[in-house]
Amino acid sequence: MTPSGTTSGGVPGPAGQPAWELLLPAAGAPARRRGRALQEALREAVRSGRLAAGTRLPSTRELAADLGVSRGLVTEAYEQLTAEGYLRGERGAGTWVGGAVRAGRVGAATGTGGAAAAGPGGRDAVAGAPDVRVDFRPGTPDLSLFPRSAWAAAQRSVLARLPHRALGYPDPRGLPELRGALAGMLARRRGVVADPERLVVCSGVAQASTLLGFVLRARGLRTVGVEDPGSPEHGRLFASTGMETVWLPLDGEGLRPEPLAASGVRAVVVTPSHQFPSGIGWSAERRAALLDWARTIGGYVLEDDYDGDFRYDRAPVGALQGLDPERVVYAGSVSKSLAPGLRLGWMLVPEALLDEVVERKRTMDLGNPVLDQAVLAEFVTRGGYDRQLRHCQRAYRERRDALLAALAARLPGTEVSGIAAGLHVIARVPARFGPPERFLARAAEAGVALRSLEEYGTARPSDGDVRLVIGYAHLSPSAVAEGVGLLAGAVGA
Amino acid sequence: MTPSGTTSGGVPGPAGQPAWELLLPAAGAPARRRGRALQEALREAVRSGRLAAGTRLPSTRELAADLGVSRGLVTEAYEQLTAEGYLRGERGAGTWVGGAVRAGRVGAATGTGGAAAAGPGGRDAVAGAPDVRVDFRPGTPDLSLFPRSAWAAAQRSVLARLPHRALGYPDPRGLPELRGALAGMLARRRGVVADPERLVVCSGVAQASTLLGFVLRARGLRTVGVEDPGSPEHGRLFASTGMETVWLPLDGEGLRPEPLAASGVRAVVVTPSHQFPSGIGWSAERRAALLDWARTIGGYVLEDDYDGDFRYDRAPVGALQGLDPERVVYAGSVSKSLAPGLRLGWMLVPEALLDEVVERKRTMDLGNPVLDQAVLAEFVTRGGYDRQLRHCQRAYRERRDALLAALAARLPGTEVSGIAAGLHVIARVPARFGPPERFLARAAEAGVALRSLEEYGTARPSDGDVRLVIGYAHLSPSAVAEGVGLLAGAVGA
Repeated sequence: MTPSGTTSGGVPGPAGQPAWELLLPAAGAPARRRGRALQEALREAVRSGRLAAGTRLPSTRELAADLGVSRGLVTEAYEQLTAEGYLRGERGAGTWVGGAVRAGRVGAATGTGGAAAAGPGGRDAVAGAPDVRVDFRPGTPDLSLFPRSAWAAAQRSVLARLPHRALGYPDPRGLPELRGALAGMLARRRGVVADPERLVVCSGVAQASTLLGFVLRARGLRTVGVEDPGSPEHGRLFASTGMETVWLPLDGEGLRPEPLAASGVRAVVVTPSHQFPSGIGWSAERRAALLDWARTIGGYVLEDDYDGDFRYDRAPVGALQGLDPERVVYAGSVSKSLAPGLRLGWMLVPEALLDEVVERKRTMDLGNPVLDQAVLAEFVTRGGYDRQLRHCQRAYRERRDALLAALAARLPGTEVSGIAAGLHVIARVPARFGPPERFLARAAEAGVALRSLEEYGTARPSDGDVRLVIGYAHLSPSAVAEGVGLLAGAVGA
Repeated sequence: MTPSGTTSGGVPGPAGQPAWELLLPAAGAPARRRGRALQEALREAVRSGRLAAGTRLPSTRELAADLGVSRGLVTEAYEQLTAEGYLRGERGAGTWVGGAVRAGRVGAATGTGGAAAAGPGGRDAVAGAPDVRVDFRPGTPDLSLFPRSAWAAAQRSVLARLPHRALGYPDPRGLPELRGALAGMLARRRGVVADPERLVVCSGVAQASTLLGFVLRARGLRTVGVEDPGSPEHGRLFASTGMETVWLPLDGEGLRPEPLAASGVRAVVVTPSHQFPSGIGWSAERRAALLDWARTIGGYVLEDDYDGDFRYDRAPVGALQGLDPERVVYAGSVSKSLAPGLRLGWMLVPEALLDEVVERKRTMDLGNPVLDQAVLAEFVTRGGYDRQLRHCQRAYRERRDALLAALAARLPGTEVSGIAAGLHVIARVPARFGPPERFLARAAEAGVALRSLEEYGTARPSDGDVRLVIGYAHLSPSAVAEGVGLLAGAVGA
């Protein structure tokens, strides 16, 4: 990682020395909260333009001393913001404000922290075929974790307090109280720039894709780029709006810039926080490169934050949208955190597209049901949503660990990746258990439903290894172990 | 009304004498229910083809004697089915099975009775502008009549009983239990052919319009006919799908056949039960002529049954869809019967369009929220929906009567039409209170919000009379009287 050409090679930027003490986290707060406050303050300073691109930051030692906090806390903040693309650094040369962020925008902006929710748009409803004993297909959370009593309490409360007029034709953008609640939650958990005026409540990421597709098609776009590997559902949704999809190759860091530039597309759909299906997190360079591309050609990025809520072994990476809310449409939903059947989601829309998206939402359905929106607003505002995420996070980490242990024990040599986050992993089973066709056929015979990675892209490796996309979140630890056991038995492991 | 050329002029049809006793309503049932049962049985016999077009029916005297029921009950059944287009009759020449119905279809079919619900698609959300004292703009029911306790009870019950898997990605067509409940209710109340397999749950008539528009546009249609006068919202919704609208003139009986045929459109949107905004009910001839047109050219009709639930002085006229479910898309919603904010509606779709409509619904939003659907299913199944309609019907009739009385007293000479049904009337105020521009300006100054009929079509009469579309359902009787009083004072009446 090197400073970009526009920075002055580590020299303090033209803004002069910022008042670092303004970054001081509240004294007396626990270390974890102070670390988070520091990250939020730094991120906001970069966004607002108070820290201009190229500004050199103090060393971690200096800033820690200035602020009276531990050096580890400052180091962690620098690393986190570097991963997100706000800062750049090089060993021995210090840390600068990067050029990725679009500085000087309006709108509130805070935090990092947890993760946001989204639905991949019916990517894989788990079918309950009678001969399926264990279903490893990804796409559905554990529906038994839906917080029925808390939801029922919120429903009661809403029906008791909502004024009559709220039952009329809704604002197509969504209920103001929900837009406010979501904006706060997303800024805090996902590091997005969440202005309630730019937030449009929709029925999920699928509808967000269709809304954006129609708007872009009306502007003359005919193609949209999708990640390869990626979700074929994105392509189907955009196809319904008259847009053709172009597969764009990924490597281990994200979308490769050259094929993107050569493709001629002016819009892309990406999953940078936990790429679907590969499970990688995009590198800071690739995040910055994508935004550079979008700014240069006036293009748009749809960020499908489909499982940003679930992180197990590391701090969450803030959403791409935080770096440039004028080029990135951010979309998420409650489909993974609560239930897909609620059909509730959100999008944060660049100013230039907002009116068109809202008018399209209006003609599509006049807006989402108001009672559901009021219930979610209450749930978020009263802390129920955060509690639900903590609860799911614990459950899903346990299941992931059960999957990793079972694969290690029963299909030794299997490489598992994309494990730090989300509701699925990629498993590469050694060729000696293959070849892939035979492996998948035996699994099906044994009642184990599986998805091959090949179903999600154009790559057809010939090494004989079996590449699987394994969803585990909807299965109990014992069902996970049973499924891997059935699999191992079926392929003679 | 004369027998059509295809009937044998009053001679019994080729099917021979039907077994009239099969039409016998259950003995011992109260007269009202027996009358209804007779109507349902006759309608079903015509639909199924058991009573072929041209079949001459027994005289009312004969059939009443055969069935052991009162003659009045048979007369009423004949009149009702003649109004709906199933039968034809001529004084002195008897009654025949008409040619309008498409006989021999599959699918359950029953009943007449109440009326169905629909939303005109955000036609007129009543704005609460601060200077508006009484708002007569049509489009919203009385939101304070929403049955909060009963709805809350249904919500509780649903959350307690719904299986976990029901919370997953929904069937885009809708929850099976709701589709079944709605099919039964609509067949009974609106006389539609309501096969649950053809019923698609959607967010209301607006979404039904958009769904159909996209499907027809993909089939190459570029224009859709709308009633003149009619709702401009239909045009806006179809425009969002790439279809241009063509105004088609109405007269006192319905859409005029010649301009329709000459227009070149292959699809139309109509409101035959209580035309919006004129308030007329289409005549049986015009219903038949529209269906003839659709069959001849392979066209489609969207029937917006936006206020079919509300009838005050006469039996409801069955929906057009009952006459030909392969040419008519029937759409309705709970927007007038419960609340627009619920965003819940339904469409009955011809077999030939079904797959395309469902796939379009899927890409638009993956389907409606499941909890709401389950709550409505419970509400309909347990009788709550019928109770709600009875309750609203009583309230709205009282308000309509208050409006008629106030207009007669304070703006004498005003002609009011379209009063038998719905949530609005047409008032033609004599020119001496005008001219229209002055009338509307004075009304606005006095804080009375009004819609002129001119806003809903192309007609610009020059007689100086003031033609208004007055919505009354959302106003208490005293507010109605106050509004008319303000109006009369403002225009010097």
